[in-house]
Amino acid sequence: MKVNGTPYRSIWPDEQGAAVNIIDQTALPHAFEVRRLETLEDAAEAIEVMRVRGAPLIGATAAYGLALAMQDDPGDTQLKMACSRLIATRPTAVNLRWAVNRARESLLSITPGERVQRAWALAGEICDEDVAINHAIGLHGLEIIRTAWQQKTHQQPLHILTHCNAGWLATVDWGTALAPIYRAHDEGIPVHVWVDETRPRNQGSQLTAWELAQSGIPHTVIVDNAGGHLMQHGLVDIVITGTDRTTRCGDVANKIGTYLKALAARDNEIPFYIALPSTTIDWNSRDGIREIPIEERDPREVTEVFGTRVAPEGVGVKNYAFDVTPASYVEAIITERGVARPPFEISLAMLFRKPAES
Amino acid sequence: MKVNGTPYRSIWPDEQGAAVNIIDQTALPHAFEVRRLETLEDAAEAIEVMRVRGAPLIGATAAYGLALAMQDDPGDTQLKMACSRLIATRPTAVNLRWAVNRARESLLSITPGERVQRAWALAGEICDEDVAINHAIGLHGLEIIRTAWQQKTHQQPLHILTHCNAGWLATVDWGTALAPIYRAHDEGIPVHVWVDETRPRNQGSQLTAWELAQSGIPHTVIVDNAGGHLMQHGLVDIVITGTDRTTRCGDVANKIGTYLKALAARDNEIPFYIALPSTTIDWNSRDGIREIPIEERDPREVTEVFGTRVAPEGVGVKNYAFDVTPASYVEAIITERGVARPPFEISLAMLFRKPAES
Repeated sequence: MKVNGTPYRSIWPDEQGAAVNIIDQTALPHAFEVRRLETLEDAAEAIEVMRVRGAPLIGATAAYGLALAMQDDPGDTQLKMACSRLIATRPTAVNLRWAVNRARESLLSITPGERVQRAWALAGEICDEDVAINHAIGLHGLEIIRTAWQQKTHQQPLHILTHCNAGWLATVDWGTALAPIYRAHDEGIPVHVWVDETRPRNQGSQLTAWELAQSGIPHTVIVDNAGGHLMQHGLVDIVITGTDRTTRCGDVANKIGTYLKALAARDNEIPFYIALPSTTIDWNSRDGIREIPIEERDPREVTEVFGTRVAPEGVGVKNYAFDVTPASYVEAIITERGVARPPFEISLAMLFRKPAES
Repeated sequence: MKVNGTPYRSIWPDEQGAAVNIIDQTALPHAFEVRRLETLEDAAEAIEVMRVRGAPLIGATAAYGLALAMQDDPGDTQLKMACSRLIATRPTAVNLRWAVNRARESLLSITPGERVQRAWALAGEICDEDVAINHAIGLHGLEIIRTAWQQKTHQQPLHILTHCNAGWLATVDWGTALAPIYRAHDEGIPVHVWVDETRPRNQGSQLTAWELAQSGIPHTVIVDNAGGHLMQHGLVDIVITGTDRTTRCGDVANKIGTYLKALAARDNEIPFYIALPSTTIDWNSRDGIREIPIEERDPREVTEVFGTRVAPEGVGVKNYAFDVTPASYVEAIITERGVARPPFEISLAMLFRKPAES
């Protein structure tokens, strides 16, 4: 997508080689800063402190992190250490594990001498695949938006609520939840996006609002508390969010607070959609509330905003990063292979040709 | 309640006379500042910019505002102008209108020469009544907490989630939703309070957390997004909030986001309680979503936190201050005369001896 008119991906190999560039998302929306990652530790740190975030993008960053590690030392010990280091950075998103395991298997099957080149190629492949996947999600999701707009008998605009950032900054390009919105806008469907602020990290007000503004898509920032009120008053037509991990049965782990929006959508008969690349599906789990580990992050994310203290000194804080929305609240899941509808265990398995669990 | 060991109310007449003192709540939790209000405009400004907030306290402040206005000029024109000015400060809370109309009627029935003294006396009465009411709410709510704790078979502690600030800072003393919690703590029932941050004004992290710390009550601050996750994992036993206006049928207008917590409580079979003084009941309305006006406030409450910008420059914002929780999600309403249970139109009318609507 474009930034001030120039096309960018959220991550790309440096032209000089030996390094990878990212957009430092902790500086947005106030500054657009490109940061060069030169070592495994640079990549791990960028994921941990959320210079990059979003399930697909942290998978891609981890793949580049392995390439940087191999460049330093392509031996087995270093490879295994690097995989462990990267997987430990964020526990909830499953793409991270998927990307690291994919690269690990591939690299272990070849000699150390071949690993640097293969690791860079693999990271590039993972990025290109992500872009293609999100492109397809955009096309499938466009049909949902088009139908919703037609059902609204073209009363303008179609109001879409989203939570957190599942735009191109959360992926390599296009985004997941926002990909269909970019498509709809390009097709001339008038959309307006309600952007949940998304405390504590404010990915909505700091990233989604910035992204949408760059593409000229009408949007309004609201606090996370406001969505229910909007829905009660007919001001939301559909909800679309991304996800960090979804079980084979369709339970959706996503940014903390997503579940509350799903409840309000159900209470007001508004369809609640999830957009995901299949790399986000955890085929090994069924019950999201019991089985998906929920990351707890630094309390300072809650008590400080851009360095300003917003709570009493010394106060106790719990900072859960994600929650799980039960599958029963999800109208449909938009994937790169099409739209899955309940029961998701069957529809997802059919789309991706997974055997049913015995 | 006590601040650093010294007893305070949230508003009190100045010992020198001719003025009233408030705790400037915009400075908390970082500074405890007492502010002297000397004119009608001082009082109106304090309500508008939320140096004082909370339905009962803004009613009390308005009553003192009328006394300050009468001191300046006790004539009919000034009286009517002062009433209009004060009522216009905040549209949702019904206590404001109730307090102003009560004082207005009383003052119009006497000569201008008698009005200054009567206005000061009336404001004092309204404050003393509020304290007595909240004291009674505390006792009735204590029984609910005690029962919940017994049902938990004394597994410590009892986890109570609250939204916004309905503590003594929202009233003249004791609070509404927090009054039962203070009582329970004094009785030795081990309570722990989950404090919703409450964006955009952060009354939870800035006021409720501060209040609870002053009284030594265990508490933990969470973002507004987190409550659903806690409830899914058995970490909330009951929810208690206040209200700014409740219809005769039990629809509850309260701080934006309350509705989302009520939905999550229902989804997880957790009782959701409202604590209110009867002055908060709007006997003239039944359908809260259609009939209660919802205040929209300055977008800068969303985009700036203690002066720090947290959203892109120029972004569009909608800042609704309240939402309405339908009566069907409310387990019971704790009042100064006892606990009302559904159907609220009957139980509230019986408690307060209002005739049923024809």
